[in-house]
Amino acid sequence: METTKKYNPETYKTPTGSQLNCKGWVQEAALRMLLNNLDPEVAERPEDLIVYGGRGKAARNFESLDLIIKALKDLEEDETLVVQSGKPVGILPTHKDAPKVLISNSQLVPNWANWKHFDELEKKGLMMYGQMTAGSWIYIGSQGIVQGTYETFSAIANKDFDGSLKGTLTVTAGLGGMGGAQPLAVTMNDGVCVVAEVEQWRIDKRIKTKYLDESIEDMDAAIDRALEAKKNQERVSIGVPCNAVHLLERLKERNVIPDVLTDQTSAHDPLIGYVPHQISLEESNVLREQDPDKYEELSYESMYRHVELMLELQKAGAITFDYGNNLRARAQEKGLKNAFDFPGFVPAYIRPLFCEGKGPFRWAALSGDLADIAETDRVIKELFPENESLMRWMDMAQERIAFQGLPSRICWLGQGEREKAGLAFNKLVKEGKVKAPIVIGRDHLDTGSVASPNRETEAMLDGSDAVADWPLLNALVNTAGGASWVSLHHGGGVGMGYSIHAGMVIVADGTDDAEKRLKRVLRNDPGMGVIRHADAGYDIATDTARKHKLDIKERLK
Amino acid sequence: METTKKYNPETYKTPTGSQLNCKGWVQEAALRMLLNNLDPEVAERPEDLIVYGGRGKAARNFESLDLIIKALKDLEEDETLVVQSGKPVGILPTHKDAPKVLISNSQLVPNWANWKHFDELEKKGLMMYGQMTAGSWIYIGSQGIVQGTYETFSAIANKDFDGSLKGTLTVTAGLGGMGGAQPLAVTMNDGVCVVAEVEQWRIDKRIKTKYLDESIEDMDAAIDRALEAKKNQERVSIGVPCNAVHLLERLKERNVIPDVLTDQTSAHDPLIGYVPHQISLEESNVLREQDPDKYEELSYESMYRHVELMLELQKAGAITFDYGNNLRARAQEKGLKNAFDFPGFVPAYIRPLFCEGKGPFRWAALSGDLADIAETDRVIKELFPENESLMRWMDMAQERIAFQGLPSRICWLGQGEREKAGLAFNKLVKEGKVKAPIVIGRDHLDTGSVASPNRETEAMLDGSDAVADWPLLNALVNTAGGASWVSLHHGGGVGMGYSIHAGMVIVADGTDDAEKRLKRVLRNDPGMGVIRHADAGYDIATDTARKHKLDIKERLK
Ligand SMILES: NC(=O)c1ccc[n+]([C@@H]2O[C@H](COP(=O)([O-])OP(=O)(O)OC[C@H]3O[C@@H](n4cnc5c(N)ncnc54)[C@H](O)[C@@H]3O)[C@@H](O)[C@H]2O)c1
Ligand SMILES: NC(=O)c1ccc[n+]([C@@H]2O[C@H](COP(=O)([O-])OP(=O)(O)OC[C@H]3O[C@@H](n4cnc5c(N)ncnc54)[C@H](O)[C@@H]3O)[C@@H](O)[C@H]2O)c1
Repeated sequence: METTKKYNPETYKTPTGSQLNCKGWVQEAALRMLLNNLDPEVAERPEDLIVYGGRGKAARNFESLDLIIKALKDLEEDETLVVQSGKPVGILPTHKDAPKVLISNSQLVPNWANWKHFDELEKKGLMMYGQMTAGSWIYIGSQGIVQGTYETFSAIANKDFDGSLKGTLTVTAGLGGMGGAQPLAVTMNDGVCVVAEVEQWRIDKRIKTKYLDESIEDMDAAIDRALEAKKNQERVSIGVPCNAVHLLERLKERNVIPDVLTDQTSAHDPLIGYVPHQISLEESNVLREQDPDKYEELSYESMYRHVELMLELQKAGAITFDYGNNLRARAQEKGLKNAFDFPGFVPAYIRPLFCEGKGPFRWAALSGDLADIAETDRVIKELFPENESLMRWMDMAQERIAFQGLPSRICWLGQGEREKAGLAFNKLVKEGKVKAPIVIGRDHLDTGSVASPNRETEAMLDGSDAVADWPLLNALVNTAGGASWVSLHHGGGVGMGYSIHAGMVIVADGTDDAEKRLKRVLRNDPGMGVIRHADAGYDIATDTARKHKLDIKERLK
Repeated sequence: METTKKYNPETYKTPTGSQLNCKGWVQEAALRMLLNNLDPEVAERPEDLIVYGGRGKAARNFESLDLIIKALKDLEEDETLVVQSGKPVGILPTHKDAPKVLISNSQLVPNWANWKHFDELEKKGLMMYGQMTAGSWIYIGSQGIVQGTYETFSAIANKDFDGSLKGTLTVTAGLGGMGGAQPLAVTMNDGVCVVAEVEQWRIDKRIKTKYLDESIEDMDAAIDRALEAKKNQERVSIGVPCNAVHLLERLKERNVIPDVLTDQTSAHDPLIGYVPHQISLEESNVLREQDPDKYEELSYESMYRHVELMLELQKAGAITFDYGNNLRARAQEKGLKNAFDFPGFVPAYIRPLFCEGKGPFRWAALSGDLADIAETDRVIKELFPENESLMRWMDMAQERIAFQGLPSRICWLGQGEREKAGLAFNKLVKEGKVKAPIVIGRDHLDTGSVASPNRETEAMLDGSDAVADWPLLNALVNTAGGASWVSLHHGGGVGMGYSIHAGMVIVADGTDDAEKRLKRVLRNDPGMGVIRHADAGYDIATDTARKHKLDIKERLK
């Protein structure tokens, strides 16, 4: 089914500047963000259309990609392009306040919602795995996750170490699209970080983009360097080209107990993701093709051992948490009873933020001009001077974040704040203070957009972890409010069967129409999260709902 | 969690006439259709808020019902009410072309999408089962299904018996909200029908509403009567107060082979649905409360035996098909290997219609006035004089269908036809030829709105049975197009884990805005079905897509 066409960076270059290639800025934004997702600086493997997260793709195949591009260029202001698992299937009449693109990726009827069935469908060319922001065209490179990762490690620093990771050692694994942000987030919190990564080129890529400081091939040498740095309260991150399991085994043998322990290998996908420790990387690449069942068996065994080692180090004193890749569930599927003895990062650190409607607000300058992002940075700092951690983040981001593809920024904003920022950006465009419109989106890992019982909705107060009405309502509400494009995904982050989530992007093109849409969408989108958490019984959310007039009973009193 | 409040037919009486209780006709339509769903003439058990289909409810509990009513009365034209599994959770700012209500019912993350987890959540008051049109407020009583059932039995008559069921015996079971339409559909096709139903009151109710002709308590007497009628080419339907399994066993013992054999007991729900044959109805009601696990065990055993008997009668010559209740899957779960040896009704009879965008188009007169429906009937007959089977249906419907609740009508219309009908109805309202607006909807069992691998999407040409992107896109597209309310459901018809589907309702209030919305929504809604079937490789659908300009490649040529 796949066309033989190859990725050509010239053909698929992201347009920049203030000239339109489409019939309006909303369509243009979709076009630029789709191509930006595939920019070699941004995507993990553009030649396979893979953006990040194992096999998270932006389009089903090159034929579909070409057709989407054509459709976006042809799309009128009162039409909507419909995309089914990365393939454009229809252009339908709607109206100017309706989304210009509607996307659903890798959704399966629950009893068939497993990797085996998905793989069959994918082989037949009927499906695509969209991860979260890959298939919904709002990925902005590792930068996107740095802020979330930074928030997590700040929360750890605050909760467990008096506000800083100075003089502590964090051990983790995986330097992929998401995992690559870990070392930077740790050093931003002044700590030492050691990361196992099986592929040397990923380590090199992270060093090039300034997310990682050093690469040390010898495991023991790397551990020694880290211990030295910890003692000297240095802030440094070290990549080690090895399997996570081997690194943890060595730490255990040497009785080196990390202060903080986690993992971001692509455990959500036991076949095209996690690399088992029993064989070499080269052998694993061959085995995956020749005997996928055997590969999965090794993979599951390896993840069992991986979690076992994490539990042992936890017992020895490491603050241990699952970082959203579903590693614990894999080990449990394989029979490890106490796999869930260490918590997920959301209930441990993130949920209180969700209750205030806080989440990963991101934006990109469609002009491609760095000065435009500088302008938006200035606006954010002006708007929220009282938010100290936000101010600290903005400073560090400006100083340390290397842009990939279209210049972009991310920061966590809460209920009320997102509207303010969106409207301010629209004003910048209107007044010509930036050279082209600004596109605003968010990760699917957000307060109101996801049901994922092993990650974002783990251990909800009322037991509603698996209720998936919420992300679906989020997508419907954003469609009704007039977001620019809306998407629904299955299996993002944690793999098939484990999650349902919704994406949203909205363009600030400086028009009055956009102003109205921004006001609605940036209120309703986090609002659904506040409502969801208030419904589950979280007091912070109840207060936030009341404060922001989201409480239906108050309204109907 | 449940409030103790009882259903009171006076308090919850459906408003009729041309006076508004809400701030606009769209909100008013939602209010009237919600209350109509619960009208004792329409609903199976209004005292439990159960509309049809086992435990398909219209609202989570009485507290939620009251709050929804209040919200609808308070809702502005540019606002949207959000309903999560039958509970109103928010009123959010949108715009006049956005749906006034967005609903998601009983959606679960796939790995938790089973009855056991659902039951736990329901007990905690966190969920509700919405079936299809119960939780989306567009159920119109058994009448709604008569047309679909009529279409199925006509298709059988055409395919297997030269256009009529005269002189044939159809055996089935279940006289619930849906199943109750079977005897009438058979006699409308001039045949003889025997129906097993465990509850006498259901038989009586169907006789009262003219869906069933007779009730004969003694099984043998009933069979004798049927054989006599078959010989005399009479057209008659007979209800037998017994378990389906017992009736089939007796038929087998007496070597009476039905010409047509099917079943519509609520097999989708092994606990609060199917009644096992090993114990009496009274015992089953006690056991369900006291030992639900034991009940389910008996239920599964019974369904195993049920399917076994159907397979035996099929071998003996009966044209046998599954009528959408997932009975075969239950038997298979219990270990019956060849349970799927008889086909589902969709691939056998309905799919060719879906490929033309045909499906269950329905409408109700919000005035409550029979003359309004007569007016719409006239319009339909004027619009499509060349469609013979439609003409035959309209005549019989007018003659034989007893209205329940608000006067309503249903007929199957295809791509292009639905728009025409919708616009003509809007004109009737505009010109004052009817006393109040007309509300238009459809069943979720439609061409583009459902993924249900054991029913609507069984045995798709390309193997895409389980792909659930389609119903989700359908809901998003209808939200974007400006439907009046849009819903997403899980588990309707075939039970938890087995289906995802979308509902859509749109109000023809005579305004120019409504005209534009009707044009879009009634084109796009079946259009998504045509696109879905064309994508799967059905030639009829490809032709229909081309004819109606739904082909994206043609458009972008
Ligand atoms: N917590 C969050 O917020 C969050 C967000 C997004 C994704 N995730 C999850 O984190 C995981 C990583 O995401 P990604 O985008 O970085 O994926 P990716 O596929 O781009 O990268 C995974 C990396 O892990 C490496 N790897 C695989 N097995 C290994 C092993 N046994 N030892 C050492 N290295 C190994 C791979 O070589 C690869 O570089 C995914 O499961 C993803 O779903 C978490
Ligand atoms: N084919 C379709 O188009 C279609 C449409 C909707 C629903 N359905 C399915 O058809 C089934 C029936 O729907 P409904 O709305 O009528 O449900 P319902 O719960 O209102 O009625 C089911 C009836 O079956 C009876 N019954 C249960 N077990 C029995 C047994 N063993 N023997 C005899 N009678 C028994 C019950 O007493 C009840 O009257 C459901 O599973 C539903 O999902 C099919």
